[in-house]
Amino acid sequence: MSADKTDRRIKTSMGTLTAETITVRGHNLVDDLMGRVDAASLFFLEVTGRLPSDTENALLNAMIVSIAEHGMMPSVIAARLTIMGAPESFQGAVASGLLGAGDVFVGPTSNVARLLQVEAAALDGSDEEKAEQIVDLYQREGRRIPGLGHPHHPIDPRSEKLLAMQRELGAPRAYTDLMLAVHKAACARRGKHLTFNAVAAVGAIASDIGLDWRAVRGIGLVARTIGLIGHVFEELNQPSAQTIWNLVEDHSDYFDPSEAGVPASPQGRK
Amino acid sequence: MSADKTDRRIKTSMGTLTAETITVRGHNLVDDLMGRVDAASLFFLEVTGRLPSDTENALLNAMIVSIAEHGMMPSVIAARLTIMGAPESFQGAVASGLLGAGDVFVGPTSNVARLLQVEAAALDGSDEEKAEQIVDLYQREGRRIPGLGHPHHPIDPRSEKLLAMQRELGAPRAYTDLMLAVHKAACARRGKHLTFNAVAAVGAIASDIGLDWRAVRGIGLVARTIGLIGHVFEELNQPSAQTIWNLVEDHSDYFDPSEAGVPASPQGRK
Amino acid sequence: MSADKTDRRIKTSMGTLTAETITVRGHNLVDDLMGRVDAASLFFLEVTGRLPSDTENALLNAMIVSIAEHGMMPSVIAARLTIMGAPESFQGAVASGLLGAGDVFVGPTSNVARLLQVEAAALDGSDEEKAEQIVDLYQREGRRIPGLGHPHHPIDPRSEKLLAMQRELGAPRAYTDLMLAVHKAACARRGKHLTFNAVAAVGAIASDIGLDWRAVRGIGLVARTIGLIGHVFEELNQPSAQTIWNLVEDHSDYFDPSEAGVPASPQGRK
Amino acid sequence: MSADKTDRRIKTSMGTLTAETITVRGHNLVDDLMGRVDAASLFFLEVTGRLPSDTENALLNAMIVSIAEHGMMPSVIAARLTIMGAPESFQGAVASGLLGAGDVFVGPTSNVARLLQVEAAALDGSDEEKAEQIVDLYQREGRRIPGLGHPHHPIDPRSEKLLAMQRELGAPRAYTDLMLAVHKAACARRGKHLTFNAVAAVGAIASDIGLDWRAVRGIGLVARTIGLIGHVFEELNQPSAQTIWNLVEDHSDYFDPSEAGVPASPQGRK
Repeated sequence: MSADKTDRRIKTSMGTLTAETITVRGHNLVDDLMGRVDAASLFFLEVTGRLPSDTENALLNAMIVSIAEHGMMPSVIAARLTIMGAPESFQGAVASGLLGAGDVFVGPTSNVARLLQVEAAALDGSDEEKAEQIVDLYQREGRRIPGLGHPHHPIDPRSEKLLAMQRELGAPRAYTDLMLAVHKAACARRGKHLTFNAVAAVGAIASDIGLDWRAVRGIGLVARTIGLIGHVFEELNQPSAQTIWNLVEDHSDYFDPSEAGVPASPQGRK
Repeated sequence: MSADKTDRRIKTSMGTLTAETITVRGHNLVDDLMGRVDAASLFFLEVTGRLPSDTENALLNAMIVSIAEHGMMPSVIAARLTIMGAPESFQGAVASGLLGAGDVFVGPTSNVARLLQVEAAALDGSDEEKAEQIVDLYQREGRRIPGLGHPHHPIDPRSEKLLAMQRELGAPRAYTDLMLAVHKAACARRGKHLTFNAVAAVGAIASDIGLDWRAVRGIGLVARTIGLIGHVFEELNQPSAQTIWNLVEDHSDYFDPSEAGVPASPQGRK
Repeated sequence: MSADKTDRRIKTSMGTLTAETITVRGHNLVDDLMGRVDAASLFFLEVTGRLPSDTENALLNAMIVSIAEHGMMPSVIAARLTIMGAPESFQGAVASGLLGAGDVFVGPTSNVARLLQVEAAALDGSDEEKAEQIVDLYQREGRRIPGLGHPHHPIDPRSEKLLAMQRELGAPRAYTDLMLAVHKAACARRGKHLTFNAVAAVGAIASDIGLDWRAVRGIGLVARTIGLIGHVFEELNQPSAQTIWNLVEDHSDYFDPSEAGVPASPQGRK
Repeated sequence: MSADKTDRRIKTSMGTLTAETITVRGHNLVDDLMGRVDAASLFFLEVTGRLPSDTENALLNAMIVSIAEHGMMPSVIAARLTIMGAPESFQGAVASGLLGAGDVFVGPTSNVARLLQVEAAALDGSDEEKAEQIVDLYQREGRRIPGLGHPHHPIDPRSEKLLAMQRELGAPRAYTDLMLAVHKAACARRGKHLTFNAVAAVGAIASDIGLDWRAVRGIGLVARTIGLIGHVFEELNQPSAQTIWNLVEDHSDYFDPSEAGVPASPQGRK
């Protein structure tokens, strides 16, 4: 731990405090942000370093709203069970639910954005040509294209709404056009209709308004936090956790490990 | 685990899905919310069951913006250290920081709201009379009145801004008036000026726009999530965690437990 | 942020690294701890600064084992739902479940220990006299004495086992005797038998082996971590989260917020 | 959500409760486990379905002890900062630190085990032949072999100790022999000595005692939980978080986002 280590400085451009002012991303918090920008604009400022246009703000808010609340989802159930055991920690229950916002439910929006911003950016040709190459690539590597398909519905009304808003607002749509081309190519290759779902719309439109692909999943995290707060607060007023626990216990069958078929030791060497 | 248990149902009014529609708190998600309401309005809907007025929305957004980003705060440092060890989990780093949004930094806004909505509601008299009784009560129980005081500044510019907005918008201010009376009474009792800080302003104004005291800390959780996402994303682009680690190691002195003075066993019986 | 701040040093007696050795709580990690002490002893060393005797170690292990695994408990269900959404983060699922180890399920062991180490330590008299005063105090303040009572059973076999081990090992039992006196006094006061449950036994025996009351809940956290790892691993091999989700959805009834009775605004002022 | 869904049952072999007994993984908790097995054995039982032999138990405890406490590590600093903001939630601070036990610090032990249990299991030949193929594979895919290398030291004393214990106890060592062959082949290929570090030893020995590769990181999670509890408890007695915060603030330089070089928008399309 030598002297040169302590010489190193931490570099940040998020915010800073002095005796007189609070600066957030280059803006005076009190004079320039409070009362002038909304929560979604602040999120945009945090991850891009600039304030959004009205169009960008409208699309961002619509995306957050579209994925915040869908009723009794797994992360919400987890948060309700957590507040039952730890009623002293509202933030702990919200964090518990947020931890499920991973690769399966929230991550795919970032995967769509990465496909567009990173994988397709390395390709040449028209959108149609790039789309063909993307479909080839995913097929070759045995990967599923994120954002396409839905268990029950040929269209996702949330995607339709987001795409309609993008058109009506005259927003940039280069990434969205490319994603629609990928959708078209994938349907043709599979020989059947695949739903262009909300994940695809959010990943593409977020890219078009300027969010880095890694920050796209931030949209889902803000949305989930809002939804989780609502559920944890409802749980405090109208508890369901005990009923959930009872349901799970009543529907569980215990098997002795010897008959359960869970691997008891690694394959191969033993 | 008897039959009557499985008969019990879970009751919720957060949201529900059918084959055709997504309903959020009594509203059609696609037709009535997307493109029409912003993220803060959705938060308001989640915790009150109704959409905010324009005035309520403006104040709510200003409160979220006021406490989202203040640079290198403890929760932000925690999140940066977490993403260093677990770069696969963006949500884990955000959750790690959110766990610090507890009784010391974020909870006091709820404590202000509880003082106003619960403790003062049990009292009779004018605001001035209630304020005297509140100051008495806290003094008698050795509790510190939340929202008053600041290490360095006689005024908190964020409070001034929020109170000015509330006046200009003609918003309801019964709880805020009461909190200002508590502030006045506390200053008189202490014989010195105490800062009416942002915690006091958020707790009071949130009460005036209709948030239950337990939901008030949700404002801080939404704000923190936004700020944490920004810092975790900056950390991915411009890492500081190794420098922070080095700083802490270089400034740490190890003492043998025998000389450290940390209690090695409980008092009294041993 | 003046110069004197950076002069301040961090003082720790947990551990330290040099080029040659790793020191843990005053012991050489490789030479003195690895191969010589078990995981429970390390926990004991961490929170007391000394290694346990054989008796202390035996009791500590028995306490950890007694509360680690009870099947489909709320925290375990939360962890299973979390790994479903975020399969990339084993630690996130474990953390999600651990967040439920709060004031309701795990905290009471610390509350028993605080009753004994702090509240009773301030009293004079014999165990019986202290017990009467404790029962008076809790009754007066409307608090429930932690560790007493059980929904279905007059005895808790885990308590019996822990108390029997304590006797057979000839371990110190001053705190346990006091807690048994509290139990006796509480039963007399209530005029009915109350179960001396595992929470009471763990809180008292942990105090007798020298754990500070605030560290007592660490026993539950170690135990829960072990149990949660088992469940998350089973979930990876034999998923149940989708079934749990389906069960909850199938047993949920959605009510419009206007009819749901959840408070839409704070009482009193509106 | 059709009828057949509610017919589905949850299958588990972790544990179950009846009115009379608590069963854990096929064992009566009170009669067969409490007082008979230690915490590490319970962990082993949780993830393998069987109790360990004395040799397996000794190695498991040594592995847990080897990685539990190393002083002021990033996850420990995160936990200390978290308890500062949320002193009401001991479990929240521990969870906050545990969230950093991811792919960088704890995950590599599982990666070593996967290399041995999955990747090498698909290969033919002697250990030396498999090792060559593994080194080829990782080189071809540009992956770094986990468990090899150390910033400063040619030997890791923890690995030496674990390997010595394994030999002295006459434990199974097929996976360890293979990992040592991989080490030898990698050193030859690179033309320089690489440290066989603790990650390699834990991954290999855990495989030899029968842990599935995905459960291997559970060793690190148990170890970290123990270490984190110690640090959070020390923080309560002897706070360092404010000093850490001051250090970070004093060593941070704020740059306007316009000059900071953090990408403000995705590459390519804008």
